[in-house]
Amino acid sequence: MKKYILLLGSAMLAMCANAQQALWGASQIVSPQVNDNKTVTFRLAAPNAKEVKVTGDFLPTQKIKTPFGEFDGPGTAELVQKDGVWEYTTPEALAPELYSYTFLVDGLKITDPSNVHQIRDVASVTNVFLIDGDRASYYKIKDVPHGTVRKMWYESPSLGLNRRLTVYTPAGYESSNKNYPVFYLLHGMGGDENAWTELGRAAQILDNMIAEGKAEPMIVVMTNGNAALQAAPGESSLGFSAPSMQLPKTMEGSFEAHFPEVVNFIDNNFRTIKKKEGRAIAGLSMGGFHSMHISKQYPDMFDYVGLFSAAIMPDKKVSSPIYDDLDAKLKKQFDAKPALYWIAIGNTDFLYKANEEYRKMLDDKGYKYTYYETPEGHIWKNWRIYLTEFVPQLFKK
Amino acid sequence: MKKYILLLGSAMLAMCANAQQALWGASQIVSPQVNDNKTVTFRLAAPNAKEVKVTGDFLPTQKIKTPFGEFDGPGTAELVQKDGVWEYTTPEALAPELYSYTFLVDGLKITDPSNVHQIRDVASVTNVFLIDGDRASYYKIKDVPHGTVRKMWYESPSLGLNRRLTVYTPAGYESSNKNYPVFYLLHGMGGDENAWTELGRAAQILDNMIAEGKAEPMIVVMTNGNAALQAAPGESSLGFSAPSMQLPKTMEGSFEAHFPEVVNFIDNNFRTIKKKEGRAIAGLSMGGFHSMHISKQYPDMFDYVGLFSAAIMPDKKVSSPIYDDLDAKLKKQFDAKPALYWIAIGNTDFLYKANEEYRKMLDDKGYKYTYYETPEGHIWKNWRIYLTEFVPQLFKK
Repeated sequence: MKKYILLLGSAMLAMCANAQQALWGASQIVSPQVNDNKTVTFRLAAPNAKEVKVTGDFLPTQKIKTPFGEFDGPGTAELVQKDGVWEYTTPEALAPELYSYTFLVDGLKITDPSNVHQIRDVASVTNVFLIDGDRASYYKIKDVPHGTVRKMWYESPSLGLNRRLTVYTPAGYESSNKNYPVFYLLHGMGGDENAWTELGRAAQILDNMIAEGKAEPMIVVMTNGNAALQAAPGESSLGFSAPSMQLPKTMEGSFEAHFPEVVNFIDNNFRTIKKKEGRAIAGLSMGGFHSMHISKQYPDMFDYVGLFSAAIMPDKKVSSPIYDDLDAKLKKQFDAKPALYWIAIGNTDFLYKANEEYRKMLDDKGYKYTYYETPEGHIWKNWRIYLTEFVPQLFKK
Repeated sequence: MKKYILLLGSAMLAMCANAQQALWGASQIVSPQVNDNKTVTFRLAAPNAKEVKVTGDFLPTQKIKTPFGEFDGPGTAELVQKDGVWEYTTPEALAPELYSYTFLVDGLKITDPSNVHQIRDVASVTNVFLIDGDRASYYKIKDVPHGTVRKMWYESPSLGLNRRLTVYTPAGYESSNKNYPVFYLLHGMGGDENAWTELGRAAQILDNMIAEGKAEPMIVVMTNGNAALQAAPGESSLGFSAPSMQLPKTMEGSFEAHFPEVVNFIDNNFRTIKKKEGRAIAGLSMGGFHSMHISKQYPDMFDYVGLFSAAIMPDKKVSSPIYDDLDAKLKKQFDAKPALYWIAIGNTDFLYKANEEYRKMLDDKGYKYTYYETPEGHIWKNWRIYLTEFVPQLFKK
């Protein structure tokens, strides 16, 4: 056997240095570096650059002018060069959170070549890092029993599409015979069936809260709310096409109308509690709008409803049976006394007023709901907070 | 109800322009653009850059000097600037293939900010695009029935870890009661349980070949071959740490030794054909080495074995019962006449000679195997080809 034995040494070095495609361009720079004192250092090797900045949600916001007005956007900080490597360390410790950032090199926005951890959200890709502690510890993968995350496809006769969804089953699902409650968790405009398990950290939040006994073991179903699409960008027969916010069938009723097809698919393929007290629905932004309409359209389907920064802004030009007779449908839903109707929003959200008016209408009718308000606006930080607040309230009765 | 109705127009524009974090930095530039004649145009808006190049495996290779010698690496092409937008169009149509590329901006390697489709392979992230046709049509998502892809965790008592793996079940698995054969598919050094479903396109290849009747419906199990790790970078309790090629427990026997724990987990959690003729194992590079040793260590476990560019290079310094008595174990394996023992490699692979010597040894002993040789070297293009060649030969008897 000896004759075809090669020594690991040089051959492995060659393989390490070159042979696997993966290695081209691997970086020696450490960035970001979370320091012991919870400050964070960013580095970029760019000897020919004239100016390097970092921008991200860990920095104080700044006003950004757009054709549609002035908005709060992520701030920037300048890196300083030494020997071709640019560097910036935050002046203070960062609070526990999952943060996103990119670099600006002579004005060109790029991801950090030293950090392979990137998450696409709608049409942009940013790097991520996590400062551990407090609520953010739910966002990381801990040594606890882990659930299974599936990408699978269901037929929608009403939409005429084979469609992809994400299903989380809790640890122990495969080895037990019991039936589980199901939480349907919907994304926002431009998002897709991947959004809640990426920046939303849904699998980590569920794993960790179930392991601590704070949440009931449950199945979580994350659909694609763009009724014209099969699946997330790159995951459908459209190939590697560009993501878009200008999708034709998002808030015109067809997604909401077809939702029983999703519930039937899940009930037929998983061991579920096939009744109202075993089902919850919630969503962020457009998904909050969807959750509001689906839950009132099918008042016997969901006992728990969550509106996270909900885009409560019906389009008067849209005509759909889904949006007709709202008053009567809401009455029916609330007369049946849902176990939880939960409304959450940030106090700087551009949808704050729409939500306030919706709450006032519910108050006027005497419909019972729970309200949860946070600082800041229409951002993933808030949606992760809402998920960790909502999930422990589910399926407790 | 009217009083809390907002018009979609301006509010949606505001949301589109700003409010969802996702939109910061979304690009208006189209890149890459696959033209009707199958040439490809790359674009980058970088008005302050002095030089922009594109590098990728769609370009002719060029010699690259490294501390370990001179190697073939991906070529580069220069983009030309007009009004701040740099552009390059390939002079000729590209052959059907899944290609990877990045930009070099004044020497800084970056991903294309206009293309959200990126794949991490070991320690680097590259953009991808696909030229459809021929074999590459298996790499894309078509309108065929789709299998389910799960990320799930199994306990390994021998490694002392809870470990993550990827399991593909074919379309129809959930709705049938039949038992399926299982194909264990292993990654290379520095790879992980995500590798084969990312650049490897395993789910697409299986979906498409099963839909065409070219492959039997089968379960595909993709493990993590780094026995010191729980999971891929970013997917374990190590958090968002950097990927590494310098992993301690990859080719020293413990992964191979623990493999029956994987098979038992799969047999206990899926409807499998729990015998040799219902099991295949194959892997690329390090995974080929693993497949060789696992299949001969447990000669009653696998009837189909594939070595894709296998890293047949045992380390004389490593001592493990797994690597002892190779001759006797191979004799036992081949005396039982495996249904298929398939060896594939590229003719410029740095492991070509090691594989040639291994084949010669098999020839000398009279052990029957099938050999498949391609141009080029140790690259994903070849591993996707080998997968599409190997899979139709499985579970046919």
